[in-house]
Amino acid sequence: MSGDWDVTPDSSRRERLGFDETVFCASKSVDQIGRIVAAALETQTSLLLTRLAGDKFSELAGRIAAELDYDAISRTAILGKVPASNEAPRVAIVSAGSSDVPVAREAVRTLNYYGRAVHEIYDVGVAGLWRLLDRLDEFREVPVVITVAGMEGALPSVVAGLVPGVVIAVPVGCGYGVAANGVTALHSALASCAPGLVVVNVDNGYGAGCAALRILNAADRG
Amino acid sequence: MSGDWDVTPDSSRRERLGFDETVFCASKSVDQIGRIVAAALETQTSLLLTRLAGDKFSELAGRIAAELDYDAISRTAILGKVPASNEAPRVAIVSAGSSDVPVAREAVRTLNYYGRAVHEIYDVGVAGLWRLLDRLDEFREVPVVITVAGMEGALPSVVAGLVPGVVIAVPVGCGYGVAANGVTALHSALASCAPGLVVVNVDNGYGAGCAALRILNAADRG
Amino acid sequence: MSGDWDVTPDSSRRERLGFDETVFCASKSVDQIGRIVAAALETQTSLLLTRLAGDKFSELAGRIAAELDYDAISRTAILGKVPASNEAPRVAIVSAGSSDVPVAREAVRTLNYYGRAVHEIYDVGVAGLWRLLDRLDEFREVPVVITVAGMEGALPSVVAGLVPGVVIAVPVGCGYGVAANGVTALHSALASCAPGLVVVNVDNGYGAGCAALRILNAADRG
Amino acid sequence: MSGDWDVTPDSSRRERLGFDETVFCASKSVDQIGRIVAAALETQTSLLLTRLAGDKFSELAGRIAAELDYDAISRTAILGKVPASNEAPRVAIVSAGSSDVPVAREAVRTLNYYGRAVHEIYDVGVAGLWRLLDRLDEFREVPVVITVAGMEGALPSVVAGLVPGVVIAVPVGCGYGVAANGVTALHSALASCAPGLVVVNVDNGYGAGCAALRILNAADRG
Amino acid sequence: MSGDWDVTPDSSRRERLGFDETVFCASKSVDQIGRIVAAALETQTSLLLTRLAGDKFSELAGRIAAELDYDAISRTAILGKVPASNEAPRVAIVSAGSSDVPVAREAVRTLNYYGRAVHEIYDVGVAGLWRLLDRLDEFREVPVVITVAGMEGALPSVVAGLVPGVVIAVPVGCGYGVAANGVTALHSALASCAPGLVVVNVDNGYGAGCAALRILNAADRG
Amino acid sequence: MSGDWDVTPDSSRRERLGFDETVFCASKSVDQIGRIVAAALETQTSLLLTRLAGDKFSELAGRIAAELDYDAISRTAILGKVPASNEAPRVAIVSAGSSDVPVAREAVRTLNYYGRAVHEIYDVGVAGLWRLLDRLDEFREVPVVITVAGMEGALPSVVAGLVPGVVIAVPVGCGYGVAANGVTALHSALASCAPGLVVVNVDNGYGAGCAALRILNAADRG
Amino acid sequence: MSGDWDVTPDSSRRERLGFDETVFCASKSVDQIGRIVAAALETQTSLLLTRLAGDKFSELAGRIAAELDYDAISRTAILGKVPASNEAPRVAIVSAGSSDVPVAREAVRTLNYYGRAVHEIYDVGVAGLWRLLDRLDEFREVPVVITVAGMEGALPSVVAGLVPGVVIAVPVGCGYGVAANGVTALHSALASCAPGLVVVNVDNGYGAGCAALRILNAADRG
Amino acid sequence: MSGDWDVTPDSSRRERLGFDETVFCASKSVDQIGRIVAAALETQTSLLLTRLAGDKFSELAGRIAAELDYDAISRTAILGKVPASNEAPRVAIVSAGSSDVPVAREAVRTLNYYGRAVHEIYDVGVAGLWRLLDRLDEFREVPVVITVAGMEGALPSVVAGLVPGVVIAVPVGCGYGVAANGVTALHSALASCAPGLVVVNVDNGYGAGCAALRILNAADRG
Repeated sequence: MSGDWDVTPDSSRRERLGFDETVFCASKSVDQIGRIVAAALETQTSLLLTRLAGDKFSELAGRIAAELDYDAISRTAILGKVPASNEAPRVAIVSAGSSDVPVAREAVRTLNYYGRAVHEIYDVGVAGLWRLLDRLDEFREVPVVITVAGMEGALPSVVAGLVPGVVIAVPVGCGYGVAANGVTALHSALASCAPGLVVVNVDNGYGAGCAALRILNAADRG
Repeated sequence: MSGDWDVTPDSSRRERLGFDETVFCASKSVDQIGRIVAAALETQTSLLLTRLAGDKFSELAGRIAAELDYDAISRTAILGKVPASNEAPRVAIVSAGSSDVPVAREAVRTLNYYGRAVHEIYDVGVAGLWRLLDRLDEFREVPVVITVAGMEGALPSVVAGLVPGVVIAVPVGCGYGVAANGVTALHSALASCAPGLVVVNVDNGYGAGCAALRILNAADRG
Repeated sequence: MSGDWDVTPDSSRRERLGFDETVFCASKSVDQIGRIVAAALETQTSLLLTRLAGDKFSELAGRIAAELDYDAISRTAILGKVPASNEAPRVAIVSAGSSDVPVAREAVRTLNYYGRAVHEIYDVGVAGLWRLLDRLDEFREVPVVITVAGMEGALPSVVAGLVPGVVIAVPVGCGYGVAANGVTALHSALASCAPGLVVVNVDNGYGAGCAALRILNAADRG
Repeated sequence: MSGDWDVTPDSSRRERLGFDETVFCASKSVDQIGRIVAAALETQTSLLLTRLAGDKFSELAGRIAAELDYDAISRTAILGKVPASNEAPRVAIVSAGSSDVPVAREAVRTLNYYGRAVHEIYDVGVAGLWRLLDRLDEFREVPVVITVAGMEGALPSVVAGLVPGVVIAVPVGCGYGVAANGVTALHSALASCAPGLVVVNVDNGYGAGCAALRILNAADRG
Repeated sequence: MSGDWDVTPDSSRRERLGFDETVFCASKSVDQIGRIVAAALETQTSLLLTRLAGDKFSELAGRIAAELDYDAISRTAILGKVPASNEAPRVAIVSAGSSDVPVAREAVRTLNYYGRAVHEIYDVGVAGLWRLLDRLDEFREVPVVITVAGMEGALPSVVAGLVPGVVIAVPVGCGYGVAANGVTALHSALASCAPGLVVVNVDNGYGAGCAALRILNAADRG
Repeated sequence: MSGDWDVTPDSSRRERLGFDETVFCASKSVDQIGRIVAAALETQTSLLLTRLAGDKFSELAGRIAAELDYDAISRTAILGKVPASNEAPRVAIVSAGSSDVPVAREAVRTLNYYGRAVHEIYDVGVAGLWRLLDRLDEFREVPVVITVAGMEGALPSVVAGLVPGVVIAVPVGCGYGVAANGVTALHSALASCAPGLVVVNVDNGYGAGCAALRILNAADRG
Repeated sequence: MSGDWDVTPDSSRRERLGFDETVFCASKSVDQIGRIVAAALETQTSLLLTRLAGDKFSELAGRIAAELDYDAISRTAILGKVPASNEAPRVAIVSAGSSDVPVAREAVRTLNYYGRAVHEIYDVGVAGLWRLLDRLDEFREVPVVITVAGMEGALPSVVAGLVPGVVIAVPVGCGYGVAANGVTALHSALASCAPGLVVVNVDNGYGAGCAALRILNAADRG
Repeated sequence: MSGDWDVTPDSSRRERLGFDETVFCASKSVDQIGRIVAAALETQTSLLLTRLAGDKFSELAGRIAAELDYDAISRTAILGKVPASNEAPRVAIVSAGSSDVPVAREAVRTLNYYGRAVHEIYDVGVAGLWRLLDRLDEFREVPVVITVAGMEGALPSVVAGLVPGVVIAVPVGCGYGVAANGVTALHSALASCAPGLVVVNVDNGYGAGCAALRILNAADRG
């Protein structure tokens, strides 16, 4: 009984779905991550790594780490060149408070990895509604708006009542008491009085990024 | 073993707390309600009855029913004269959709019973934010604003970020799926990013009315 | 204290969001629904009514009912002409079992109301996987696939692993035991291993339709 | 992609609501907190910081820490002079056991920051009811009583049955088993048989302080 | 495959535990109940029937019903003579509101069936604390106090802090919102700050009666 | 604002309830515990301390620690002489597995502190039923049996079907998955098919001990 | 938009899995059920129908109903001849109380439909343990034992500790309070201390029958 | 009061059930584990130890550790020779992602301990369905398939629709948000639309192994 096992990478995923298999690092050891990156280096494959905690990144062999574009806030790393984009951002991301930024940035990095630009608008929670309304013009016309909010999660409902684009809610597990695990923000988005709001799992910035990507890809295919 | 039992009315409640014991009809039979009202008629005591379903009201003896001021929307009944009020309303009540009105009206009727006027602003949910903002002047200056909202319950957070008065949230158990029992709206109000919002139980219009009364009474005492 | 109250319709919603305010009938009396339809008839406004139970529809005055295109399965009614559509359906809807059809049809009717055609594929649950795979070509290329499934809710994850389009999951509250209220299917879709799946509330066919509409509108705006 | 982002402080909050934006430190790094305090020092703005854990406070640069009035029990820090108050306390705070004091003190510090005095009455849980009844005269007449209790949370219901003032319940997440996360105390306060009790989130001493402030401000405005 | 099946009565239960098997009628048809009573009549066995709804009782054959001592409030029926008791009640039962009486009476009837007298004290909820304190002498000295309360369930904690006897809490599923199903009252009793309080299931008056019986039997055995 | 506050010990508790206030150490600092013990030493008062973790005990000043009878398994400490007992144990404690022993011992130590002997029977879970049945004679006749079990919590139901004494269930928060927090064992005991079983909070060995004490005291008073 | 839709029966299920698609009637109208049975009659296919409520069965056209072998207790109907079986039962079914029999019978009928005999042992709940132990020989040697129990669900754990065969637990949603929806019995079975117990959904007698069938089929294949 | 207590090993378990008592190390100290292994060494008994964390294993005395066959992935250790097996594997184990392997391996090791071979198929989650379908022949014919999956847990439903053997689902507590504790995967398996799927507790690889063993033993007994 050896200490490891064969993996079966989903090699046709990009062709099938339009994006690659991502390396979710939370459930992998430093050693496993290192071997995956080394293999990708060898085959000159680009990689997106998510939930790569700072201390795990620090433990990666220097040679490996040097190849990665690591972002400490979103805990993501990118291996390889990301495609350049000249187009104006067609995705806006809107968040409420400072706890929401790491999750928002995970979405941004995911979209960047596939060459999509994102317009970032942070710190515009509903407790000071004028901040959001003042910047409405910046996200009223884009096809996709990602809203990132924890606590009571009112932001996505307010945004979805203001803009005609697709609004994706990412609930965030911040706060304390009934807010702590993000379920209040999640249920708030699901039960929204604003029509056509769609939702991903708590803290799932990566998923929101992929959903936005599917929307842009579909629009591009016409 | 007889079929009934002695009750111990809380006779000093008005003196102690500033309001009377209310008759919560949901857990009482038509017969019990009839006897309570008859006894109050005899002693010329005024009464507030809550959760008095229409069919129960219809079954009350005509002589009893004729003495009651019944409101079918809020399912409340009042026995006796309510005190007249000349003052401008110092409580505003703001609600999101048509499912919220019965709960809002329970609060209004409770305040009316104690001679307090209420300014009612309905149908101003956050999915069409301009409706709320257009009427902001009507509730910006009152000492107490009661917000009544089900579904995602974003309204109280938005209101508490706009006005300096005391904001009381009453969650409503309407909608379906994760909204059905009102817990999403309840948790949303408790987890609010707006500072100093206070909350009562799901559908508890009566409790919100009593809380508003405590605030006005305290202000009156100086 | 009158028996009713003024409503504040969200009159700018179509201009702002691209669709009208819908009449959610579950929390309205037959009388209220009748008056809303009568008012729309007078102003020659079209209307979409959802959650209109069969017995409520039957109680509507004949003159009113005659004007409505009522669909008993989805419990929706449409007032006014729906726009004709010549284009091939750009939305596919895929469901697992017979309990899912009413919810799926609510989405279909919502899209039809705005002139969007939908390709319907029912009864292809994962317990007999070949049924889904046999029809893959029918929904592999459309920009939006709505999946409707209750019980364990595996269908959206399987579909989102097969197609590049936007996949919207509508959980359904059918089954018994841990499946009864739809939360298992909801959490299953949110926790999916397939990237970029987006989710709406349990039984929210209307919301899924609106989300699809936002996506198509965004694609049309370019 | 830089390591940080612009913040949008809610600069009109005091004017709008009567109080400043508070620095919630639980989701901020020592570095972020340091920069916020430094900026406030530069503009001679006063600040209230909450959930500032002892170890984070210790890591702040000595120059920064020296300017802060830090209270280890409530984990709050105040920058700047708090307004002097000559008036007798108009808020009483009543708590059950030793686990409740940190939460109670967060409310006290919040009120102190805005120049409001508070009368503190600790260790009077209902298991030894005479302790509460013996001190009833100390809080029977104030306009606002904040009750702070974990475990079964019976204290707010008992207090709200004894005094006519506004009673705010702060549930506390102490104890073990079904009490551990404070939801029992929270639901207990929401489901109270005492009329007009209002509730804030678990452990939300800050929110209770802000609610008391809204009440006193409203009373002062007349 | 016949329409019914053999039952295996627990014939040695009284000898083993000190009480008989009770007929829980909620999950039995009128027909099944009728046959069980008829069989007991034949063997001159006494019976306690619980959760016997009024309409089921009315449907029982007149001959059967005539033999039963039916109590509509507690929904219990007794077949056979209950033992006479001369002793002063050694169990007191204390309840908060009118919704609690049916559950309290189920406990009373269970104890009566085994010849135990009970002192009943109703309508003494903590919102009017003086009612409870005024009658403290009536239950301070008995070995067993059963407290019956729904909503926030503060009563058992207050009682268990006042008397040295065994205090059994029976939570009641009354009220609405977070109180509706009795779980708040249940958790409140379990998380009590009063030492040595014991708890039975929501609405389980029968279980509380059996627990009291075990205590009295143990005391009698010495 | 000083760093500490006055406490209000419940000085009449022993007289009122038959036992002293216990020092629950989980929410107290080493410093607070040290001062409480020092004060008790000065007044020659005996003390029971519960939830005193090993590392906290180690940090207590040697002079203080030396006076305490510390039990590492139950994490309890006793200050002062415990009364000697010559009587045969009237309480039996029965537990299922090794995770249950710390909780069981907390009950034993509580009873010992008040001079009550306990007969301990461990490791007799229902997966090997013969172990329990073989020792039935050891606990069939005592007035009180405390059962301590986690996981599925079947033990209390089986025991309460075998003995006539009072059976107290203490659920234990051990195991993993749905068993992890003890709620399954708690609900299992509350929903038991065995009549008259009473229950305390998860891991509440102290509460079970106090309940047993109330029963024995009541029996002793006659 | 027609009132119905095409179904896609899983025609290869028996060949693939060893059993047919069953007609789950709870979510089907009388009309739909009638048409399904009529179609099967035409093609001389046998059918198993589950969750066919008595009133739905009564509404079926007499010609259809006459062809069905309907069992009111289990709410199942069988169309066509069930295979005869001469072998001794290799499945035993053991249940606790009368509420469990309908669920148990659903499993029995499912197995009978495929020609498998079942040995039924009812009314042997753990509150009277001797009833189970007395009949142990009847189910000690069979390869599969299905246990059916609600409330605390201790029965499957006790059985799985007594026999070497495969033990399948079917939790039942009976009782009240924390037992009402069957989740306590479900979690109890999942958290069992007895090794190798397997579990199906609450009230899922049909699923337990299919699992038993898979086991017997596998054994037969050798 | 000594620091330890007598244990009552279930010495007849192998004879009764077909397998030994296993040492569940999560709730045992290094010292306790060491003594149990030492005792087994003395009596030349073989042992299976589960949930033996790496750091606990490292702390075991070298002499003890040297006797154990430790597997770091599954955190299991085996003492003694495992029986050799020549037969082709009759159990297949199928898992979705890398987080599932430790749980899968716990099942494998349990079966190996009793001399049963297992065919392992990892990394075949439904997001890339072709991986599973490509390997269908490897597990279509075995009598038992164990599926191990976290997140949305769709894998067991898909597998149970493809093969006629017994399918056991082991939910895994991996992922984040609504997936974090494994309840979504658990409920997904219980609510499956595939007939006859059976389920064990979250992360309970050991339980799945024992269930498979019961099935194989039953088949072997004929």
